[in-house]
Amino acid sequence: MLSADFLLDTTMQDQDPMAIIKELRLRIDQEIESFFNECIPKNLDNIGKSVSKLITEFTLSGGKRLRPIFVIMGYRLFRNADERIFRAAISIELAQSYLLIHDDIMDQSETRRGKPSLYVRARSLVNAEPEIVNRVSQNIAIIAGDLADALAHKALLTSGLEAENLIRANLLLSDIIETTGYGQLIDIDSAYNKNFKQNDLFRMHIYKTAKYTIEGPLMLGAILSGTNENLAPLSYYGSLLGTAFQVYDDILGLFGKEDETGKSVKSDVNEGKKTLLMLKAMEKSDEKDRAFILKCLNSGNISDMDFDRLKKIVVDTGSYDYSLKIVKSMSDKAIEYLSMINGDKQVKDFLKGLAYYVIDRKN
Amino acid sequence: MLSADFLLDTTMQDQDPMAIIKELRLRIDQEIESFFNECIPKNLDNIGKSVSKLITEFTLSGGKRLRPIFVIMGYRLFRNADERIFRAAISIELAQSYLLIHDDIMDQSETRRGKPSLYVRARSLVNAEPEIVNRVSQNIAIIAGDLADALAHKALLTSGLEAENLIRANLLLSDIIETTGYGQLIDIDSAYNKNFKQNDLFRMHIYKTAKYTIEGPLMLGAILSGTNENLAPLSYYGSLLGTAFQVYDDILGLFGKEDETGKSVKSDVNEGKKTLLMLKAMEKSDEKDRAFILKCLNSGNISDMDFDRLKKIVVDTGSYDYSLKIVKSMSDKAIEYLSMINGDKQVKDFLKGLAYYVIDRKN
Repeated sequence: MLSADFLLDTTMQDQDPMAIIKELRLRIDQEIESFFNECIPKNLDNIGKSVSKLITEFTLSGGKRLRPIFVIMGYRLFRNADERIFRAAISIELAQSYLLIHDDIMDQSETRRGKPSLYVRARSLVNAEPEIVNRVSQNIAIIAGDLADALAHKALLTSGLEAENLIRANLLLSDIIETTGYGQLIDIDSAYNKNFKQNDLFRMHIYKTAKYTIEGPLMLGAILSGTNENLAPLSYYGSLLGTAFQVYDDILGLFGKEDETGKSVKSDVNEGKKTLLMLKAMEKSDEKDRAFILKCLNSGNISDMDFDRLKKIVVDTGSYDYSLKIVKSMSDKAIEYLSMINGDKQVKDFLKGLAYYVIDRKN
Repeated sequence: MLSADFLLDTTMQDQDPMAIIKELRLRIDQEIESFFNECIPKNLDNIGKSVSKLITEFTLSGGKRLRPIFVIMGYRLFRNADERIFRAAISIELAQSYLLIHDDIMDQSETRRGKPSLYVRARSLVNAEPEIVNRVSQNIAIIAGDLADALAHKALLTSGLEAENLIRANLLLSDIIETTGYGQLIDIDSAYNKNFKQNDLFRMHIYKTAKYTIEGPLMLGAILSGTNENLAPLSYYGSLLGTAFQVYDDILGLFGKEDETGKSVKSDVNEGKKTLLMLKAMEKSDEKDRAFILKCLNSGNISDMDFDRLKKIVVDTGSYDYSLKIVKSMSDKAIEYLSMINGDKQVKDFLKGLAYYVIDRKN
């Protein structure tokens, strides 16, 4: 059994950040597995057993585990790590399963992390007439998501950490899920909202990405540590880095290499995503180009020629440079806030390294 | 403002149970309203505001509030009530909204409590092409359900009750939601499972109805009171009464008066529900009648003539009497367990009255 001793130690000195991440991932996967083993009732009916298995496999297959790592680091900033924080940290990974399972239904997305999404896998459990199998398997997936959410709360509450801290942390976990929901609503609305502006976009990024990917998990860990330190700088670090992360992700979505990003460079455009690249390009271009951009976003299946022209507009209007500048200034600002935190020096260095990792500053 | 003084008093003596229920309902609705006023963020985007409003209206429109009343009674059995238990009690009503909002999507049910279901109401928020409005409004409703769930946890955790009790109660709340999910899965499976037997049905009733309608809420209240009394009899009371309630509900569903039950006597059959009435009738009838029952359950739209024949089979096979006997013996047993609880005498009398209220023993 992996001991995660390096985190139980008082320092993480001389550890390569990537080595820490790699070892933490293994430890987190192990924790998820033992949590499911302990927590899924043994006396379930066949359908309950099968769906629990789908949730377990879904949660264990892939995922970078950045969210639980941020929980552990938020804790470790103010208090030596112990076994309990691993159990608490996986709550955010289970909440992630919950949101992704529902997300794939909403997006009608047949794959997730290169494998069939949960509602697709649930089809094999439905012995119904072919015409209703898809509907019933989506119903099973709605319930599976709800189950994953219940498990998320359970993981946190059974971690054995102090009651007062757990109450505050569980309130935050609910708040993270709530905020993400409001962000998803902005996302849904953005497709039909003709007045969707840069500010709406940033609010969406903060709600939908920053809160539940970086800021929320870090604050969850910090609250669980029971520290009395001022947590505002940590919150700003998380919100800024999370937003920068999303804007950078959108840049890679259009200009990245498909074998590195793992998705088609056209997919964001085909999904009609109003990214900062698109919004700024529309703002800075003439009426003809603006109409062209909107046409591309509504096409659902952009041609190679149109795609090249679209990218050229994004570069020529200065939107590409503008987006990159936003990413850099936000991550610089994030690192600045990091220095204001009165916490463990090694963890702060690690978080600084992560800021460079999530946003590859070479670009 | 309604004071709910009668519950803050040390006794509920000389109070008519129906008068208590009526007054409690008003107090609970008031608590739900003030919770939403306090808890919904003020700075939401338009779409967030609109969806919050839908959740608020959905939660406030109708509903008998039996679940929060059971929470309050579970608490009041062992400890004098105070304002905090009302806030904690509405968590189960918000969890109810969560489950019903998702349920209506799963069942494609256009109405709930005589009004349009949430996903139907969400259509007015979608400015999209007509062919995708339904899909997008269902996506909004999936998120609305998830939001209601986050709010359920928040209501409990902000009640101000003792931290240790809150941890245990929130674990139970998660457990209630989880168990209900497993029950819903059995329900989905029952339609296609040819080996669905009486035992599966009772497990479904315990998971899907008893746990989250009676047993869970009562235990939630008891745990929040912080009592050290043995809670097993209370749990048995809840499980038995909840199961009896569901079986009786199924009897009314077939033999009740439509103006009293508020739904068509044919709807259970048209939905293909394998109720105890149906299972027992199939068990006790010859092959021809068994095939006829299955045909009725698969018809989706039973004729008046077939419906009369079906009811006659249910009566002639003794299935009607058998079901009624089960209801009576379970509720008798529930009342027996009630007497073993070492708690407030008036509350026990009230719970005894409720056992007669939820199952009209005149039938």
